[in-house]
Amino acid sequence: MAKRVAIVGAGVSGLASIKCCLEEGLEPTCFERSDDLGGLWRFTEHVEEGRASLYKSVVSNSCKEMSCYSDFPFPEDYPNYVPNSQFLEYLKMYANRFSLLKCIRFKTKVCKVTKCPDFTVTGQWEVVTQHEGKQESAIFDAVMVCTGFLTNPHLPLDCFPGINTFKGQYFHSRQYKHPDIFKDKRVLVIGMGNSGTDIAVETSRLAKKVFLSTTGGAWVMSRVFDSGYPWDMVFMTRFQNMFRNSLPTPIVTWLMARKMNSWFNHANYGLVPEDRTQLREPVLNDELPGCIITGKVLIKPSIKEVKENSVVFNNTPKEEPIDIIVFATGYTFAFPFLDETVVKVENGQASLYKYIFPVHLPKPTLAVIGLIKPLGSMIPTGETQARWAVRVLKGINKLPPQSAMTEEVNARKENKPSGFGLCYCKALQSDYITYIDELLTNINAKPNLFSLLLTDPRLALTIFFGPCTPYQFRLTGPGKWKGARNAILTQWDRTFKVTKTRIVQESPTPFASLLKLLSLLALLMAIFLIFL
Amino acid sequence: MAKRVAIVGAGVSGLASIKCCLEEGLEPTCFERSDDLGGLWRFTEHVEEGRASLYKSVVSNSCKEMSCYSDFPFPEDYPNYVPNSQFLEYLKMYANRFSLLKCIRFKTKVCKVTKCPDFTVTGQWEVVTQHEGKQESAIFDAVMVCTGFLTNPHLPLDCFPGINTFKGQYFHSRQYKHPDIFKDKRVLVIGMGNSGTDIAVETSRLAKKVFLSTTGGAWVMSRVFDSGYPWDMVFMTRFQNMFRNSLPTPIVTWLMARKMNSWFNHANYGLVPEDRTQLREPVLNDELPGCIITGKVLIKPSIKEVKENSVVFNNTPKEEPIDIIVFATGYTFAFPFLDETVVKVENGQASLYKYIFPVHLPKPTLAVIGLIKPLGSMIPTGETQARWAVRVLKGINKLPPQSAMTEEVNARKENKPSGFGLCYCKALQSDYITYIDELLTNINAKPNLFSLLLTDPRLALTIFFGPCTPYQFRLTGPGKWKGARNAILTQWDRTFKVTKTRIVQESPTPFASLLKLLSLLALLMAIFLIFL
Repeated sequence: MAKRVAIVGAGVSGLASIKCCLEEGLEPTCFERSDDLGGLWRFTEHVEEGRASLYKSVVSNSCKEMSCYSDFPFPEDYPNYVPNSQFLEYLKMYANRFSLLKCIRFKTKVCKVTKCPDFTVTGQWEVVTQHEGKQESAIFDAVMVCTGFLTNPHLPLDCFPGINTFKGQYFHSRQYKHPDIFKDKRVLVIGMGNSGTDIAVETSRLAKKVFLSTTGGAWVMSRVFDSGYPWDMVFMTRFQNMFRNSLPTPIVTWLMARKMNSWFNHANYGLVPEDRTQLREPVLNDELPGCIITGKVLIKPSIKEVKENSVVFNNTPKEEPIDIIVFATGYTFAFPFLDETVVKVENGQASLYKYIFPVHLPKPTLAVIGLIKPLGSMIPTGETQARWAVRVLKGINKLPPQSAMTEEVNARKENKPSGFGLCYCKALQSDYITYIDELLTNINAKPNLFSLLLTDPRLALTIFFGPCTPYQFRLTGPGKWKGARNAILTQWDRTFKVTKTRIVQESPTPFASLLKLLSLLALLMAIFLIFL
Repeated sequence: MAKRVAIVGAGVSGLASIKCCLEEGLEPTCFERSDDLGGLWRFTEHVEEGRASLYKSVVSNSCKEMSCYSDFPFPEDYPNYVPNSQFLEYLKMYANRFSLLKCIRFKTKVCKVTKCPDFTVTGQWEVVTQHEGKQESAIFDAVMVCTGFLTNPHLPLDCFPGINTFKGQYFHSRQYKHPDIFKDKRVLVIGMGNSGTDIAVETSRLAKKVFLSTTGGAWVMSRVFDSGYPWDMVFMTRFQNMFRNSLPTPIVTWLMARKMNSWFNHANYGLVPEDRTQLREPVLNDELPGCIITGKVLIKPSIKEVKENSVVFNNTPKEEPIDIIVFATGYTFAFPFLDETVVKVENGQASLYKYIFPVHLPKPTLAVIGLIKPLGSMIPTGETQARWAVRVLKGINKLPPQSAMTEEVNARKENKPSGFGLCYCKALQSDYITYIDELLTNINAKPNLFSLLLTDPRLALTIFFGPCTPYQFRLTGPGKWKGARNAILTQWDRTFKVTKTRIVQESPTPFASLLKLLSLLALLMAIFLIFL
């Protein structure tokens, strides 16, 4: 009899989990609290409890070639960075293509997931769900938790003395949907993550004045990277990753700062990170420097005090009148349906082996998928986690002994930098390629570059020097996709097809022709000299 | 008796002309058609006949240090690129500071400017004006025409077959004020100048789909230039100008293309200029590539045919449904109040010596100010023109013989590239620094870099290698301003003061310290070896 798997949440990781279960012959049942799939990526005008909330203008931070499911490229006519409505469409195409819908029970909230009394023998779970007010209970052989980390707003009001006296409006960025409410207002956005920055930029087109307050600062990157290539297709190559990871952290940090400052000097724009050795998630925003240089957004340090109708920033005694405060202070995560003995969350960390398996369970029948912040796309990360996790749940792959897993988790909690490569010291952060390669190794799906170099050198070089697109994870092993090779070799075609919508026959400039002529002459001369 | 000067228009050039007249002891009377000063820079919700029309979001293309009047820097707290409302405030400050208002007659339209019967002897003009329906006539000793070139929309409907059958809305960009009307519409913007690009970008945040059609393409630059410095403060230096002008045009063009493509490859984004040897006015837009890469704006070639509810572009047979067309097809200029025998406009060119003086007048008592498109700011250009022109009108400076002037004008009309430097082959375009230096030479106000290098080397080097800010035009000669030197030496301070609003004490990274240590060791070693 096939194993029954309960999947909590039908977002990007939930969908990948269903597909992986089906492919491995398991019997998945996905419980989705809301009435449709897509999780985070489904925009609604109103905030829904227990579901991440988008603002209308959200565009993906990772480009389409880097953030697709590894065997399901985005449609060719999709833009490189995908607006949320199209992203949702893509997820629906995926669900249709792999017949995932039949496994999803919508409007069904998971209330409780508890170990069965005979858990140590069977590894089974009792899952209590609620659908239209009616509770139901069922036994599952395994559970995959795909609830993400963007549902519980973090609103540290205690850190803002005087906030209780503030007479204006204030709310968490999660409540933000459209900029209209800021028309002609004096707005303060606190926190410079991607949401905070987006909100400040968007608001600045309507508001009277916009302040963006940041304690730590941040590196701001543009989606339009070197020569206009999508940032992640340049940054996320196996070559670059190897190069970075072989250099001492101070050198990498210094190179990184140089690179980041080449677009604009972050010190001159008031954005320079206070701590440059620890890499925070970079902020992706094409418009912020333009907003700063035109005076539309003013960068400010942390807040000293909030008054009735104004705010005082640290280092400047001047009171700035403020009408609305947006707290873009991020999120915390929790598993309200799980007992603390199963997964305990402490200081934004959970004791999960490889960010997936609770270390203390006698049976590895529960997996958390998508609870990680790689410097790369979530979709292929969650998908690869699911591929491995499903094989562990099924019993094909084994986990190491508990002591080894505990050691790995503790080492991560200790946060000891290795001294090489970029320093990912914040909770849940991880090196994208390294992490995925670890997972792929577990399921024997990691492409072998050396043997590939002999059999298919063009592919091998594209894999090593080109962007680490998810198709690479489907070249070999279980779940191998025969379209993978072609998808890799045509990744740049798809990238430029959508932007090269006006083509000009480039006539070589006289200077370029001259250069070519000179090179030819030099070559002839060299050949002549060799044979002389 | 002081000479009476009629000035037509109280925009940026009109204001400078009034000031120059006052300083030279002339008696200026400025006629302004509308009820306030500022010309182009005064935004109104409704288009006014005979006055340039702004959209709400316009920000200056030239930064505050480069686009101020040469003896009147922008206030320190102004952003580097100034939004139109603040720009207007600045113009009002200027008018107040130099008591210009008393010379302006508002709501007074200039109907006719004709030579007096004894013009060949007196050089006088009869100026017929209209104020609140009542016509008046007065005799003036000289006339300065400051009406600009952005009042008469150029709407070449004949070039768009089928436009008469189009059932949607269409209008010239001059009519555009706010993006709201484009909400959920399919919009086509024709023409990729600064307005067209701004409109496409702005509209894309609300519209269902936005196409930007361009026949010739364009180089797009960001205000946030190399390392975040304002583009014109990097690009407009005497050193760079000399460097460019000493290289053959093909090499300069090639270098220019390289530079432009370093932000993003214009071919990959469908923007590459068809003709790369002739420099069009570059488009300044920080957001366009971001809009293209996220699919918000689609670049298209020229239009083949307009249908009832759609448009067919050249090179693609597909019909694209369109609801609104915006013709951002630019402007023409004319002098409706002047007889053709005074200034004739042909093919977008007027027969004006140095873009200022009609060549055929027996007396040089009429000057056109601000009818030029330098690759730099209009304000200091118009101001410098006015400084010279006023001295000619007054009789202190003489014009060359008519034959020499005609020769200069004809050479310009012939449009023969010199073979060196950038090729400004479009009407009214001119090399900013070279042109201004010519005017300054005429009034002995051009700074002498060689003698300055001996007496004030710091200033000389800043002038040569630093941005060519307008203060340089006030270091010497008539109209010398004693604040000029200090303004030049503090130009970068004012630039960064407004963006460096959060300051972080930069701790040197260990790697940088190591580098310093190594350099020190190398230095010591070198000294040791020298003295060995």
